[in-house]
Amino acid sequence: MPGEFSLIDAIARRASARADVVLGIGDDAAILAVPAGRQLAVAMDTLNAGVHFPEDTAPADIGWKALAVNLSDLAAMGAQPAWCTLSLSLPDGDTAWIDGFLDGFLALATQHDVALVGGDTTRGPLSVCVTAHGLVEPGRALRRDGARVGDDVWVTGTPGDAAGALAQWREGSERDAALRARLERPAPRVEAGLALAGLAHAAIDVSDGLLADLGHVCAASGVGFEIELEALPVSPMLAAAFDPGQRRVLQCTGGDDYELCFTAARERRDDIAAIAEAVGVAMTRIGRVVPGDAAVALERDGRRWKPPRQGFDHFAS
Amino acid sequence: MPGEFSLIDAIARRASARADVVLGIGDDAAILAVPAGRQLAVAMDTLNAGVHFPEDTAPADIGWKALAVNLSDLAAMGAQPAWCTLSLSLPDGDTAWIDGFLDGFLALATQHDVALVGGDTTRGPLSVCVTAHGLVEPGRALRRDGARVGDDVWVTGTPGDAAGALAQWREGSERDAALRARLERPAPRVEAGLALAGLAHAAIDVSDGLLADLGHVCAASGVGFEIELEALPVSPMLAAAFDPGQRRVLQCTGGDDYELCFTAARERRDDIAAIAEAVGVAMTRIGRVVPGDAAVALERDGRRWKPPRQGFDHFAS
Repeated sequence: MPGEFSLIDAIARRASARADVVLGIGDDAAILAVPAGRQLAVAMDTLNAGVHFPEDTAPADIGWKALAVNLSDLAAMGAQPAWCTLSLSLPDGDTAWIDGFLDGFLALATQHDVALVGGDTTRGPLSVCVTAHGLVEPGRALRRDGARVGDDVWVTGTPGDAAGALAQWREGSERDAALRARLERPAPRVEAGLALAGLAHAAIDVSDGLLADLGHVCAASGVGFEIELEALPVSPMLAAAFDPGQRRVLQCTGGDDYELCFTAARERRDDIAAIAEAVGVAMTRIGRVVPGDAAVALERDGRRWKPPRQGFDHFAS
Repeated sequence: MPGEFSLIDAIARRASARADVVLGIGDDAAILAVPAGRQLAVAMDTLNAGVHFPEDTAPADIGWKALAVNLSDLAAMGAQPAWCTLSLSLPDGDTAWIDGFLDGFLALATQHDVALVGGDTTRGPLSVCVTAHGLVEPGRALRRDGARVGDDVWVTGTPGDAAGALAQWREGSERDAALRARLERPAPRVEAGLALAGLAHAAIDVSDGLLADLGHVCAASGVGFEIELEALPVSPMLAAAFDPGQRRVLQCTGGDDYELCFTAARERRDDIAAIAEAVGVAMTRIGRVVPGDAAVALERDGRRWKPPRQGFDHFAS
């Protein structure tokens, strides 16, 4: 079995460079040059085997997703990703596993020009912790506390797909490949977040479920949300695999989509349509910000719809 | 059992502020203002239960150490600590455990004016991952690749103490309280590192064992090291608890001390003595940088001493 330091060497050999990385993998810390006029955005998320992914998930998918969930957090801030660090806990130092993991991790890193600059490898139950660093202009970050009554509420892409894939996996039914890709290879909406910085009033990424995540925005902004169930954009594969009743549960409470949900002034509808076109990501108006303190979903006739559960909380049973 | 979000609230309530934290815990990412004229130093280290600490370690000690090992990495770069993020994986959401953990973590954070700005809590085997961010003037970071033939080699404090405590724990013998404190509450040499920035040629923190860590400096700098066994500073408690033969093994190969080992020009001896005095940390000359590619320990008569093992590698058996 290879030692820790040869594992780190193996990772360092595959890490890409950026001009602003003064010192990358291989010292006690990385040294990074933050450009003048930019603030630093820092997100950190851990994925544990058996909790966030099944133990037998392909290592490349784990690598992709571990970075994706962190880039999604940067996207939700409107930050430009720059650097990341990686802490890998592994039951053993299986180099084939690590190579596979890096295939996925670095494919996404390359897509967004993110340099892997440090971290550690250690023995332990399979767990991946990533810290992602991005850059944002002062005052332009997309926060959770900026939603205003009267704002439109928007969502990128088609929420519910990842939850649909998970439901198929749990039921042991045949798994739709496109849904599965949405669960295992989520695309962080980095370009969308960048384009919305300075325009949207508030944003969050949908990781715990649409209503649960909007609940965080309610609390931070001191507002309520009304979401029109009929307005939720549905992917063809989700529509094909689930009936409307199942679908709305998946769309309102399913996590792991990593779409952006954001609010913006009504006057900016044309701008947002132009941004959606420019970045190639659908953006759909799904509701409005109202006075209140909760995110509620409304039926076509305006009645409130209560989901069977609100979202995913790692410490709720 | 409390949910994830109330745990995060509990952590957020106890986190301290800094003026340069634009946005702390509670959004998708933290936003931090890096001052003009400073580069960012980033270190990330994970501690896993059963690997880096016994399962029954007091939560406050785990909290202290999880931050300490990261601040030690910043110290070894000569960086001023500023912010950290914390990812906690816990088998359950035991609030008493988390309170204890935060007691230790935040005590050290306060000591070094480090703001906890984000992270996550998640279900999983007990594991603590910390990313520490520091600030350093361009060109003044202490790196591993700057050692020069002819340099003196120095070490702070008294290496071997933490390994002594671990040996006592493994043997089940009575544990010296002062040694134990060195293992469980290591003091990162932040002020020493800051004072040495721009003066020392190379530095590393002793986490894996003195010879093993110097081996990394050898590789990075393309030099060799000769360490005089007789010159190694010994704490009174280590001297009392172990005979000279055991002691040198602990001092040369024992990890977890988090002392700084650094090299500097011979002409700077008086400056280093003044720094040691100013920061209140002993600094002892223990050898020299020589041509070569290995770190070797020498007996009083100049013969090479071979330790039974080189150091600690998490993936070596």
